[in-house]
Amino acid sequence: MKIQQEAAHDVSDEPLLSKHMHAFILSHGSLEEALAFLLATKLANTNLDFDVLYELFWDALRSCAKIRSAICADIKAVKDRDPACLSYCHCILNYKGFQACEAYRIFHYLWVQGRQPLACLLQSRVAEVFAVDIHPAAKIGKGVLFDHATGVVIGETAVVGDNVAILHGVTLGGTGKQGGDRHPKIGEGVLIGAGASIIGNIRVGEGAKVGAGAVVLIDVPPRTTAVGCPARLVGSRTNPSTLK
Amino acid sequence: MKIQQEAAHDVSDEPLLSKHMHAFILSHGSLEEALAFLLATKLANTNLDFDVLYELFWDALRSCAKIRSAICADIKAVKDRDPACLSYCHCILNYKGFQACEAYRIFHYLWVQGRQPLACLLQSRVAEVFAVDIHPAAKIGKGVLFDHATGVVIGETAVVGDNVAILHGVTLGGTGKQGGDRHPKIGEGVLIGAGASIIGNIRVGEGAKVGAGAVVLIDVPPRTTAVGCPARLVGSRTNPSTLK
Amino acid sequence: MKIQQEAAHDVSDEPLLSKHMHAFILSHGSLEEALAFLLATKLANTNLDFDVLYELFWDALRSCAKIRSAICADIKAVKDRDPACLSYCHCILNYKGFQACEAYRIFHYLWVQGRQPLACLLQSRVAEVFAVDIHPAAKIGKGVLFDHATGVVIGETAVVGDNVAILHGVTLGGTGKQGGDRHPKIGEGVLIGAGASIIGNIRVGEGAKVGAGAVVLIDVPPRTTAVGCPARLVGSRTNPSTLK
Repeated sequence: MKIQQEAAHDVSDEPLLSKHMHAFILSHGSLEEALAFLLATKLANTNLDFDVLYELFWDALRSCAKIRSAICADIKAVKDRDPACLSYCHCILNYKGFQACEAYRIFHYLWVQGRQPLACLLQSRVAEVFAVDIHPAAKIGKGVLFDHATGVVIGETAVVGDNVAILHGVTLGGTGKQGGDRHPKIGEGVLIGAGASIIGNIRVGEGAKVGAGAVVLIDVPPRTTAVGCPARLVGSRTNPSTLK
Repeated sequence: MKIQQEAAHDVSDEPLLSKHMHAFILSHGSLEEALAFLLATKLANTNLDFDVLYELFWDALRSCAKIRSAICADIKAVKDRDPACLSYCHCILNYKGFQACEAYRIFHYLWVQGRQPLACLLQSRVAEVFAVDIHPAAKIGKGVLFDHATGVVIGETAVVGDNVAILHGVTLGGTGKQGGDRHPKIGEGVLIGAGASIIGNIRVGEGAKVGAGAVVLIDVPPRTTAVGCPARLVGSRTNPSTLK
Repeated sequence: MKIQQEAAHDVSDEPLLSKHMHAFILSHGSLEEALAFLLATKLANTNLDFDVLYELFWDALRSCAKIRSAICADIKAVKDRDPACLSYCHCILNYKGFQACEAYRIFHYLWVQGRQPLACLLQSRVAEVFAVDIHPAAKIGKGVLFDHATGVVIGETAVVGDNVAILHGVTLGGTGKQGGDRHPKIGEGVLIGAGASIIGNIRVGEGAKVGAGAVVLIDVPPRTTAVGCPARLVGSRTNPSTLK
C-alpha cells in the first residue's frame, strides 16, 4: 500500500513519529481499517467508547462500497488540488477537513438507515473536535476537498456535487424563514472561497467559482464567478466580459 | 421530565446510546444537575478536575434562579427556531452553541461575584472546546439561540437582548482603538446572520436583521435590515421600500 | 518572575485555581519551561506522548534565542494591545491565539531543520485543538497579537512582519490557481480586522489597516486602510481624503 510506504519513510526520517504512525497507519490491513481506527480515536470520549465507534465505523466502511469509493476520490482530490499536501499519508493524518468529511460519510449512511439520534451525536462530535458542522442529511458527492475546514457549516437539505472544493469558513445555509428544502445545491467542480456564505435554496452551476467572503443569495450560472457581499456575477467562460 | 422521556425513547431505538444517555440525561434528577454534569465533563482536563467544576456549576445553578429561567428559555428558543432540532434532548446533548451559552451564564455569574481569574479560565476552556469566545463581563438576555456557533466572539462590554438569534462566525467586537464601553448593544429579537461582524459601541434596534457576512459599523434602527460590507440599511416594516 | 507573582496572587484570591496554577506556572523555573509544559499538555493525545512533546518543545526553546525573544515580545503585545487582557499570566494560560502562535514558532523551527512530517503533525494538532491553522513554512515576526484566533489560516508562503495584530477568522490565503510563492506579505504594524481575507501574493504595507470582513485582492500601500468586499482603499496618513 502506497500510504504505508509513505508512513514507513516518514518514520525512518523521524523516529519520534514511530508510535503515532504505527497506531494510525502501519498496523492496519487496509485504508478503511486505518480510517475507522483514526476516526474512532478522535471522536471517542468518556461516555462514547472507542470500541463501540470503531465497530460502527468499520462496519459502515465494509458494508458500503459507495463510501469506500468516495474516500479514495477524496484523498486524490486533496493531494492533487492542495499544493501544500505532501503525501496521501499526510492527508489522512493531518487534514481535519478530510477527517470530518469521511466521518460525515459514515453518519450520513447511519442517517439514511434511520438511525437519527446516533447520526446527530456523531455530527455534534465532529463539530466539537474539528469545528466542521455538516448535517447528516446533507448530500455530498465524491472527490471533495475541504481545505483547512474550520467553521464550515452545511445544512440539512444542501446538495454538493462531485469534485467540489470548499475552503474554511464556508456556509451552505438556510434563510431561517422556513423549514423544508431550504439549502443550496452546488454543482460539480465548483470552487467556494474562504468565508463565503451561500444562503437559501439556490443553485450554483457546475464549474462556477464563488470568491472569498462572497455572500451569494441568487443562482449562479455554470462556469460563472460570483464575488462581493451581496454577490454579483462577474463573467463566465462563454461571456468573458465581466459585470464589474 | 419530557427530556428524559425523549432520551429513553432514543435509547430504545438505538441501544448503542445507552451509556451516553444514562451518563448525560437519564441518571440526573433535574435539568440543572444534568447540565452541570455535562459542562463539567466537557470542560474538565488534566489540571482542572471534573469534581471541582461540577460542584462549582451545580452550586451556581442551584443559587441563581435567573440562570435557571434563562436555560429553559434558551432550550425552547433552539427547539422552536431551528427546524433541524429534533428534540429538547438533542439540543442539550448536541448543540455546542447551547452548551457554550449555558457555560457563559455560569462564568458570567462568577465574574459578577468578583471571581475574575476563574471566570476567564472558563471562558478560555469554552473557546478551546467549543470555539465560542464570550467575555464573562458581556451581558446576554434569555431565549438566545447560538446556531452552529463556531467562531462566535462577543466582547467585554457587549449587551445582547432577549430572544436574539446569533449564527456561527458572528463577531460583536470593538474597534481596537480604545478601552471602556466599546462593543455593540443588540436589541430584543434581533437576528444576526452567519459571519456578520458588528463593530464598535453601536446599537442594533429590536427586531432588526443583520445579513450573513454583513459588516455593521453604524446604528441599525429597530425592525430594519442591514446587509453588505460595510453594511447599508435596506428597508424596514414602517418603510418597506429598500435602499438597494 | 512577575508572572509567578500574578499567579500566586490569583491563587490566594481563588484557591480553586491552585492545582491549575501550580501545574502551568508556579512549578516551573522559567517562562520557556512553563510554555513547553503547557503546549505539550494541550497538544499531547493517546498516540502522541506528553513526554516526547515536552522534550521536543523544551529543546527548541532552549536552543533558539530568536524564539525566546519572540515569545517575550508576543506576551507584551497581547498585554499592551488587548484591553481585555488582565495580566501576563492570563495571556499565557487563557489566550489560545498566543498558545497557537508559540506552538507555530516551535514547529516552524522544526520545519526549517528539515523535519517536515513532524512539523505538519504539530500544525494539524494546533488546528484541531485551537482552530488555528498556520503552515509551518510561513514566516511570522515578533510581537504579534492573535486575538480570539478561531478560524485563522496562514498559508505556506505568507510573511507577517513584526507587531502585526490579527483578529479571529483572518485568512492569508492563496488564489488556488498555482503553487509556488502564492500568499500575502504583511508589513510591520499592520492591523487585520475580524474575518478579513487577504488573498494572493500581494503586499500590505507597514502600518496599513484592513477592516473587518474585507476581502483584499490588491496591494495596500503603507499606512492605508482597506475595507469592503472586494476591498477598496479609503485614505492614508499622507492622503487623508478617502476614496469612498
